[in-house]
Amino acid sequence: MHVTLLTAQSLDGFITRHDEPGSGFTSAEDKAHFRATLADFDCCVMGGATYRGAREWIQTHVAAPRRLGVVLPRTPERHAAETRPGALEFTGAPPEKILAGLRARGFARCALLGGAQVHGLFLAAGLVDELWLTVEPVLFGGGTPLLAGRVDVRLELMTLEKLNPAGTLLLRYRVVR
Amino acid sequence: MHVTLLTAQSLDGFITRHDEPGSGFTSAEDKAHFRATLADFDCCVMGGATYRGAREWIQTHVAAPRRLGVVLPRTPERHAAETRPGALEFTGAPPEKILAGLRARGFARCALLGGAQVHGLFLAAGLVDELWLTVEPVLFGGGTPLLAGRVDVRLELMTLEKLNPAGTLLLRYRVVR
Repeated sequence: MHVTLLTAQSLDGFITRHDEPGSGFTSAEDKAHFRATLADFDCCVMGGATYRGAREWIQTHVAAPRRLGVVLPRTPERHAAETRPGALEFTGAPPEKILAGLRARGFARCALLGGAQVHGLFLAAGLVDELWLTVEPVLFGGGTPLLAGRVDVRLELMTLEKLNPAGTLLLRYRVVR
Repeated sequence: MHVTLLTAQSLDGFITRHDEPGSGFTSAEDKAHFRATLADFDCCVMGGATYRGAREWIQTHVAAPRRLGVVLPRTPERHAAETRPGALEFTGAPPEKILAGLRARGFARCALLGGAQVHGLFLAAGLVDELWLTVEPVLFGGGTPLLAGRVDVRLELMTLEKLNPAGTLLLRYRVVR
């Protein structure tokens, strides 16, 4: 199972602008990149807040035909009515178990879609292979951080693209183990 | 007076690794770039913690011939014995007044050398023209942030350089007003 953390942040490392939920601050070019890139993955994992912040979009675009969305809310049992097995599932399992379960079912390429808790959990467990990060040319000084919890992760830059004239950057890193 | 914020951070926006003071985490290439780049400036402004974290280095290399180092400690009067007028000075003045004073004395190019408080103070006051940021390919999840306090600053990428094979990036932005 190949795991890629896929998100956008401000230059100073925030995935939300201050307390605004969602990724409204990202450029049109990042949004287009994100939609196109989702097609590279056959499953996605995200936290409860990320799911609640974009529920309809996720139900339609992430949990698409032949792609499974897995949500880690605090209380998975509350989401029984929204569950569509094989398309949208809710779990409280630890990261290793989620990935092992996905692998056993034939999934091969997983995107982590946020938020900070999910990023921190999977990075701390050494379960992330790549980080595809859009860096928007803005400074917020506050908001949801890229990841919750201290880590010490070394990366290696694989590719770099400038997405627009303002200088939105798409940086693809591999995690060095 | 042209003001450039000059620093290095982790990809997730920390200018220190966890609670370690100083910039020990930066690459040799960033250190060489930083030393060479200082020559572009005739004055530097930094906070008390930044000064205390590298006192001897700053006394020797920042407050060099024909370059003035200005330190903003909490209690400037405690540093009277270290003051060398025109080379190393200590002040409690607000950012606008510091820059006006430097301009009146003929200084033209100012580098902000940290830390988070000084960065936040000058950015919030709209006094920063450019941001020259080295982004090291590491994730920390904690440490001193790039800037203290919320802001909403738009940038435009001017130039981009890859400093080494691991992918340390030198990004030069202008602040959009």
